[in-house]
Amino acid sequence: MSLSEFDRDTAVTPREPGVYDADLSGGWAIGSALNGGYLLATMARALGDTMPHPHPFTVSTHYLTATAAGPATVRAETVRAGRTLSTGAASLFQTGPDGREVERIRVLATYGDLATLSEDVRTAAKPPEMPPYEHCLGSEHAPSGSSPVMADRLDMRLDPATVGWAVGAPSGKGEMRAWFCLADGRDPDPLSLLMTVDALPPTAFELGIGGWVPTVELTAHVRALPAPGPLRVALSTRNLAGGFLEEDAEVWDSADRLVAQSRQLARAVRG
Amino acid sequence: MSLSEFDRDTAVTPREPGVYDADLSGGWAIGSALNGGYLLATMARALGDTMPHPHPFTVSTHYLTATAAGPATVRAETVRAGRTLSTGAASLFQTGPDGREVERIRVLATYGDLATLSEDVRTAAKPPEMPPYEHCLGSEHAPSGSSPVMADRLDMRLDPATVGWAVGAPSGKGEMRAWFCLADGRDPDPLSLLMTVDALPPTAFELGIGGWVPTVELTAHVRALPAPGPLRVALSTRNLAGGFLEEDAEVWDSADRLVAQSRQLARAVRG
Repeated sequence: MSLSEFDRDTAVTPREPGVYDADLSGGWAIGSALNGGYLLATMARALGDTMPHPHPFTVSTHYLTATAAGPATVRAETVRAGRTLSTGAASLFQTGPDGREVERIRVLATYGDLATLSEDVRTAAKPPEMPPYEHCLGSEHAPSGSSPVMADRLDMRLDPATVGWAVGAPSGKGEMRAWFCLADGRDPDPLSLLMTVDALPPTAFELGIGGWVPTVELTAHVRALPAPGPLRVALSTRNLAGGFLEEDAEVWDSADRLVAQSRQLARAVRG
Repeated sequence: MSLSEFDRDTAVTPREPGVYDADLSGGWAIGSALNGGYLLATMARALGDTMPHPHPFTVSTHYLTATAAGPATVRAETVRAGRTLSTGAASLFQTGPDGREVERIRVLATYGDLATLSEDVRTAAKPPEMPPYEHCLGSEHAPSGSSPVMADRLDMRLDPATVGWAVGAPSGKGEMRAWFCLADGRDPDPLSLLMTVDALPPTAFELGIGGWVPTVELTAHVRALPAPGPLRVALSTRNLAGGFLEEDAEVWDSADRLVAQSRQLARAVRG
């Protein structure tokens, strides 16, 4: 079986201990910048190679400067190795126009082993209420040329109740919901979940705010190994104030389990 | 006016550029460990001294090992200085029994200037519904000896609907709500908000889970300069699974503004 687009494009090659070469793919662009979730997944792959535990449990990502397609270096280190959990740090660098390294993203992460968790679940969380897949809207329904390049990597179908923005009639509610698969059929895993939490159109669109909504910081929790099959993703924003908004994501797997949660602080660049 | 307990106990003294001495106070203990929010505020004070912007906008904290009262060293650095936002990193160290430095906590933070934000607010968030201050329960209502030492620093009154755990009858809902002031009357500011988000009893208690609920990671967003006067804090947990739970905090000021949000991933050590 050939490597999935996601695995190919998030691959990292060890150069020396703790230093990895990556070749970031323009296929994950949103406008002129690469998607933050794609970049996070690439860094988490390097961290997973460095750390004594296999899976990201909680990953905090601060975005410093916009990342472009092309060569990049990830430096990753284990900060503390524990029995159940280990904590590490990673940074993504690219070469600036003057030939010097520029740091793009810095990450702190705590890793563990999701396969060792008990099956005990006492949850008040419920999967999002949304229409079945076949009643949701794919990029083939979007106005021609309006979908980002990254949409070609995804099989994503938006809940019609959350796409008013696409026809100039945002709902005013800070909500976005979608069915979510990788276009090449690769099943979800903890790494792809880190991309999934940041892959939908921003809730700001449904609040009537267009333009660029760059992420300042995103923290994702991976809560369980996802079952194969389609995911459901629900985004919500409670508070847009002073030009900043938080955006929460929940990702549910085909077995109705909450497999990832994230919160990001983003900037509404144009009001 | 004398220094508040909070300002005195979170003070840091510059030793050399980027290195600060702290003397952590046992007055902020919960059981045998110091409160994570108190420690975060102390580290954020050192970061604020290092960074070109004054206020924490988003702070991601990974807790490595339990911190004890006594001397500690904070190392803080600016990673990137921008026009609107700057990003920094900090670590808290203590000397271990073998005389070597042990890292306790690592932080990534993005700072800005809350005073420059526009007054534009488009929010769906509403303050928590809870009884007035005089109908909520202070530590003088708690069973004798059951309150942590830190309770003496706070004037905190819990919503009676969320204190079933204290009399052996947890509600089963992952909710906790309180009125919140510092006991010495000091008004809230961005630094004290970082302590406030982690100061209530854990929601796990209302889920029927006693014992230690150590924080793995906590990310806090400070969204506005708080108005003087009492705060309202609402915690909620949606998903307890596999021995881990997320806990979300919202902090509202006396002017009904959402001034801080946080999410932490915690471990339910005993089921």
